[in-house]
Amino acid sequence: MRDAAMMEHRIREVRITPVAFRDLPLLNTVGVHEPFALRAVIEVLTDSGLTGLGETYGDAGHLDRLRLAGAALVGVDVWHLNELARRVRAVVAGDHGTRGHGMSGMVTGSSTADRVLSPFEVACLDIQGKALGRPVSDLLGGAVRDRVDYSAYLFYKWAGHPGAEPDHWGEALTPDQIVAQARRMVDEYGFGAIKLKGGVFPPEEEVAAIHALRVAFPDHPLRVDPNGAWSVETAIRVGRELDGVIEYLEDPTTGIEGMARVAEAVSTPLATNMCVVAFDHVRPAVARSAVGVVLSDHHFWGGLHRSRTLAGICDTFALGLSMHSNSHLGISLAAMTHLAAATPNLTYACDTHWPWKHPEDDVVVPGALRFEAGAVPVPTAPGLGVELDRDALARLHERYLSCGIRERDDTGYLRRFEPAFDPTAPRW
Amino acid sequence: MRDAAMMEHRIREVRITPVAFRDLPLLNTVGVHEPFALRAVIEVLTDSGLTGLGETYGDAGHLDRLRLAGAALVGVDVWHLNELARRVRAVVAGDHGTRGHGMSGMVTGSSTADRVLSPFEVACLDIQGKALGRPVSDLLGGAVRDRVDYSAYLFYKWAGHPGAEPDHWGEALTPDQIVAQARRMVDEYGFGAIKLKGGVFPPEEEVAAIHALRVAFPDHPLRVDPNGAWSVETAIRVGRELDGVIEYLEDPTTGIEGMARVAEAVSTPLATNMCVVAFDHVRPAVARSAVGVVLSDHHFWGGLHRSRTLAGICDTFALGLSMHSNSHLGISLAAMTHLAAATPNLTYACDTHWPWKHPEDDVVVPGALRFEAGAVPVPTAPGLGVELDRDALARLHERYLSCGIRERDDTGYLRRFEPAFDPTAPRW
Repeated sequence: MRDAAMMEHRIREVRITPVAFRDLPLLNTVGVHEPFALRAVIEVLTDSGLTGLGETYGDAGHLDRLRLAGAALVGVDVWHLNELARRVRAVVAGDHGTRGHGMSGMVTGSSTADRVLSPFEVACLDIQGKALGRPVSDLLGGAVRDRVDYSAYLFYKWAGHPGAEPDHWGEALTPDQIVAQARRMVDEYGFGAIKLKGGVFPPEEEVAAIHALRVAFPDHPLRVDPNGAWSVETAIRVGRELDGVIEYLEDPTTGIEGMARVAEAVSTPLATNMCVVAFDHVRPAVARSAVGVVLSDHHFWGGLHRSRTLAGICDTFALGLSMHSNSHLGISLAAMTHLAAATPNLTYACDTHWPWKHPEDDVVVPGALRFEAGAVPVPTAPGLGVELDRDALARLHERYLSCGIRERDDTGYLRRFEPAFDPTAPRW
Repeated sequence: MRDAAMMEHRIREVRITPVAFRDLPLLNTVGVHEPFALRAVIEVLTDSGLTGLGETYGDAGHLDRLRLAGAALVGVDVWHLNELARRVRAVVAGDHGTRGHGMSGMVTGSSTADRVLSPFEVACLDIQGKALGRPVSDLLGGAVRDRVDYSAYLFYKWAGHPGAEPDHWGEALTPDQIVAQARRMVDEYGFGAIKLKGGVFPPEEEVAAIHALRVAFPDHPLRVDPNGAWSVETAIRVGRELDGVIEYLEDPTTGIEGMARVAEAVSTPLATNMCVVAFDHVRPAVARSAVGVVLSDHHFWGGLHRSRTLAGICDTFALGLSMHSNSHLGISLAAMTHLAAATPNLTYACDTHWPWKHPEDDVVVPGALRFEAGAVPVPTAPGLGVELDRDALARLHERYLSCGIRERDDTGYLRRFEPAFDPTAPRW
C-alpha cells in the first residue's frame, strides 16, 4: 500500500448489490412508506486492489441503468471523472424515463445521467481518498467544519404497518403526537432544527402542528414540506400564516411557475427538491425567482463534485443551500457528511431519514458514524471513512430478494388500505 | 519521495518574485504596451520538501496583497483549498481597490480576493500533482483533450518602441499589415482561429482589417475585441456589419447594460472579459442576457477549481466559454492548458499572448510546453509539468529591478509620445 497514491487505479470491476431494509409507515402526500426501503450498494474495484463504495436508489429501472453503466466503466482511471461522466452519459443517452428513480415520481427524467453517475463518482472519490490516505472532504477542498448539523425529520405516521404490531415510534397523526415525536427525536439525537413532512392532512391541521412545535421548541428553526400538495392559492394563504414562524417553506406547490407565484406573495423563503432537481431547471427557476433555497442531493445532482458546482451556482445567484434526503444507509450518510463539511455555503442543517432506520439495518461496519448534539462528526479516516460489512450486505440483499418490492410505490401501498386514495396534486 | 502522496504537505514558506520580460509596442484602446511586462512568480514550499509554482500579475499594488496573503498561508495543508481561500479573503477583506491588477484599469475591484488567491491555489495543485505523480488536469477531473487549441492574437503595433530599432514583428497599422502579421503567426504556430485586438482605430478601419482577414483566411474563425471602445450605437452598427463574419464580438462596449442593448440588436454572440470578471457580475449579466460567451481567466476567477465552477455556471446558463489572456510566462501557460484540457465545455480556442514574448524570456526550463498545429499538448508530467529555471528567474527579477516599471501603465506610456491621447470610453 505504500505506493498506493502514485499507482494507477483503473476500474477492474463494478459490483451492484440491491438491498432492502426495514422502513416504517411514514406518510407523505403520495402515500405511505412500504415495510422495506430499497437501496443499491456499489462497489468499484481497481486493478490496484482498492475498493470504493457508493450508495443509490435500488428501484428496478435504476438498477438496470446502473448495470449498463457499470459495465461501461471498466478501464477508467478513478481520477478521470470527466471520462466517467462521459461514459455514463453515452450509456443513458436518450433514456429520459421517469421510472425507477426511488423518489415516487417526484423527479423528472432530465437528470437521469446524473443519478446514474452519482454512486460511481462517490466510489471513485472513496478510492482516491484511500490511495491518498485522506478523507473525501479533502478532495472537495477540505472540511470547513468538523461536524455537520442534521435536522429532526418528523413524519406523520401510522402506529405500525397494517397487520403488524405498533412499531417503536408509534402513531403520529395529531399535533400533540408530532410534538411528542419531535421531543423524542431531539432528546435522542440532539437535533437543533426540525422539519415536518406535510401534505398529508388538510393544511390547517399541519399549520396547527407547526404552531405546536413552535411553542414546544421556541428556539429550533422549523420547516414544513408538503411536497407540492397545495394549490398556488392555498400555498399563498398557508405561507402567509407561517411567515415569521418557519425558516423556509419546502415545495408548497408544484412547478417553477407555481412556486414563483407563491414566492412573490410570501416572505418566507421557498425551498425545493422538486422543481429544481437538475442543472437544466436552474436557469428557468432563477429567471422566475421561483425559489430561495435549493435542497441539494448528491444522489441526483451527479455526485459530490457536481454538487459543489451547484453550491457555486447557489452562491453566485444568492440562493440558499440545504440538503435533501431519502431513506438511506451509512455509505450515503458518510458521503453527505463529507460534502456538507466541504461546502462553505451549506449553512442549513441537512435532512436525514437516519432516525427512522433500525440501527442494526446497515451495510457499514458500526462505529464510523455517530450523532452528537444533532451533528455527525466528519469521518477523518481515508476515503469515505466507512467499511463494508459483508455479512450485513448479504443479509440485506437476502431481504431484498425475499421482500418482493422492486420499485418504491408509496401510492400503491396506501391504496391497499384506502382504495380511493388519490395523490393528484394539488390535493388542497 | 515514495511516500509523498500520503504525507502531510503543509505550507512552510511562500516566495514571491516579481519579474519583468521584454514586451512589444502592442496597441490597445487605452494605450500601448511598455517595453517590459510585469509578472510575479509564486513558489509555495511545504514542510514535506515539495515546491509548487504559480504566476500572476506583477504590479506593485497586487504584490503588496500577495505578500500579505502569502504570510498568512503558512501552516495550511495544500489540500485544504477552502482554508486557503478563507485566509486570503480575511487578509484582503475590505480592500476593494482597483489599483495594481495588471489589467490597465479594465477590471473592477470586486474580485480582489480571487485575484490574490489564484496563484496560491495553482501552486497548491502543482504540489498535489507532484505528490500524487499526476498532472494537474487529473485533479480537475481529467483531460478530455490531449491538446488545447489557442488562437492567433493579432495586435496593431508600432514598428518598434520609440527610440529603438524596429522589432522582429515590425509595424502593423493597416489591414494589409494585419493580414501579414496573421499569416506569419499562423505559419509559425499553426493557429486555427484568429483574434484581432481592436479599439485602436476608427471602427471602419478595423472592420476593413477583419474583412481582409476573412478573405485571407476563409476557414479561420475570427474575433475582434475593441475593449469597450465603442458607444452602444457604434457597437450595434459595427456588430451588424460583422454578423456572419466573426464567431464572437468581444466587449464592443462597456458595462452590462450597454452590452445587453447591443446583444439585443446583433446576431453575433457577444463575449466579455470586462463586464463579467467576477462571480458577482454573473447574476446581473444573466438577468439582462448581456453576454453569450464568457472569457474565463483563472488569474482573476480565483484559480483552477473556481474557474471550473464558472464553467459549470456557463454550462447551466447556456453561455459559451472561452479563455482570456494577458501577457504571461510558462507557468501560466501550463495552468491555462491543464484547466482548458479538463473543462469539457471550453470549446473555443483560448487566447494567448505567447507569440509576442521573446522565446528566451521565461522562468521555466524549456521543453515542457510547445505549440503544434495551433495547440499546446497537455503536459503529462506530475503537477503543472513545468520546472522553475532559477537562473532565468534571477535574470528576469534583475530586469524587474532595473526596468523602473512598477505598475502597468499603457496610457501613460502612449502619452509620452501623444500627450493629447484620451482613452475615455467610448472613443467612437
